[in-house]
Amino acid sequence: MNKAELFEQILAKKSYLCVGLDTDIHRIPDFLKSFDDPIFEFNKRIIDATKDLCVAYKPNIAFYEALGSKGWVALEKTLDYIPSDIFTIADAKRGDIGNTSRLYARAFFETMSFDSITVAPYMGEDSVKPFLSFDNKWVILLGLTSNKGSQDFQFFRENDTYLYQKVLAKAQEWGTAEQLMFVIGATHPEKFKEIRQIAPDNFYLVPGIGAQGGDLQAVSEFGMNDQVGLLVNSSRGIIYAGSGENFDESARNAALKVQQQMESILNTKFA
Amino acid sequence: MNKAELFEQILAKKSYLCVGLDTDIHRIPDFLKSFDDPIFEFNKRIIDATKDLCVAYKPNIAFYEALGSKGWVALEKTLDYIPSDIFTIADAKRGDIGNTSRLYARAFFETMSFDSITVAPYMGEDSVKPFLSFDNKWVILLGLTSNKGSQDFQFFRENDTYLYQKVLAKAQEWGTAEQLMFVIGATHPEKFKEIRQIAPDNFYLVPGIGAQGGDLQAVSEFGMNDQVGLLVNSSRGIIYAGSGENFDESARNAALKVQQQMESILNTKFA
Repeated sequence: MNKAELFEQILAKKSYLCVGLDTDIHRIPDFLKSFDDPIFEFNKRIIDATKDLCVAYKPNIAFYEALGSKGWVALEKTLDYIPSDIFTIADAKRGDIGNTSRLYARAFFETMSFDSITVAPYMGEDSVKPFLSFDNKWVILLGLTSNKGSQDFQFFRENDTYLYQKVLAKAQEWGTAEQLMFVIGATHPEKFKEIRQIAPDNFYLVPGIGAQGGDLQAVSEFGMNDQVGLLVNSSRGIIYAGSGENFDESARNAALKVQQQMESILNTKFA
Repeated sequence: MNKAELFEQILAKKSYLCVGLDTDIHRIPDFLKSFDDPIFEFNKRIIDATKDLCVAYKPNIAFYEALGSKGWVALEKTLDYIPSDIFTIADAKRGDIGNTSRLYARAFFETMSFDSITVAPYMGEDSVKPFLSFDNKWVILLGLTSNKGSQDFQFFRENDTYLYQKVLAKAQEWGTAEQLMFVIGATHPEKFKEIRQIAPDNFYLVPGIGAQGGDLQAVSEFGMNDQVGLLVNSSRGIIYAGSGENFDESARNAALKVQQQMESILNTKFA
């Protein structure tokens, strides 16, 4: 999916919601555990309940790896089940020396067929570039993350530049806004304005609303560009909104609430 | 395996060699491809051929993920096959927000039973600490990596401190030298002396000799501490030393060459 198509999807659905499929075997409803593949059953129902309300799904790979090869199977089945007009993000935060990053790219772009993968920047250019050499695939590079630990190194400062700013600037030498997004946490809403000056055209994947406390309104106000430019993620706040037999209805209601907020913001900005 | 036991193994085997199991389906000998699980067959023979010459094995997880669930099965079987007195490293370079890093830790320390995992520092304390909360398990944090891209961000400089130096110093507030190692690339041999001043007691995992061109002699001279403190990795230089039916003999000969160099260095320093 290219940038124009993503923008189109957002306008059509009046939503820039990404649903995080952080499916934890210890948190899914008990009744699902009698199925052959409880993780996939859970995801299937979440997808059925939310697919008209969101434009992206983002399985965090950790939750699948924690189950070993069985988890990997559940992930593959989940990816196959997601409708093809919805953008898919492997939240993997990978990154290694060049010949190895190429293998990770193969894993997520070829063996599986994700549209995008999150990548960690610490190892620099040759760890990121292999992911950028696939047609019609996206790198979502960690910029300023939503967690408390973002303070430890991302605000390391050379002269007037923070490390995360350097990452945003440097990475744009490696790929265009047609293939490169950034992770910018919703827990730093005051930073979005300044970050838009460094990376005006890129989409941002924004975690941290909901369970982590970020503010959708503020993020949208300061973070949007003329193609929206935001995919705002919610994981736990949606998929664990309910815990019984009707967990999927609860998830739908939670997603609907966010989508309606987004619709009202989009109506103001893209009337 | 604790630090004293690792030191003991090094002295007993006269080796601080780590063999990297970067097993690529496109590079293994053709005759293995008729087996049910060619990747595991390859690894099994490499392990049989080198287990008396090395103290650690390090599968790079990318090579297994690239094969999807089948690769994951091969990885699990390989880990089971490694003798229990050999240190195992999941070279995964993971790192995510706290609740997610915990899942990765579960994946590699519980679902599988690796002794250690490599972790990327960009997301800071809460992304690293969950890996440090397992008894008798190790975090190997990226410090100064061996690749060209290490220049891009690791040498970002605040006052007199480079980012990689900050990472080495800061991480020691999170864990002791009994549970925390650092990745320090052999391609920066001139840096080892200074790095030993920042992290005197930690073991370093040292990639970059062999295919990447680092120098074992220089690394050992400047990087050793009084418990050796080095695990020097070679992957491609050993496992792909030969390509025919006798690839395992070729691998043994390549490993033996490195081990003999190490024995001579150890004899000088630990007579």
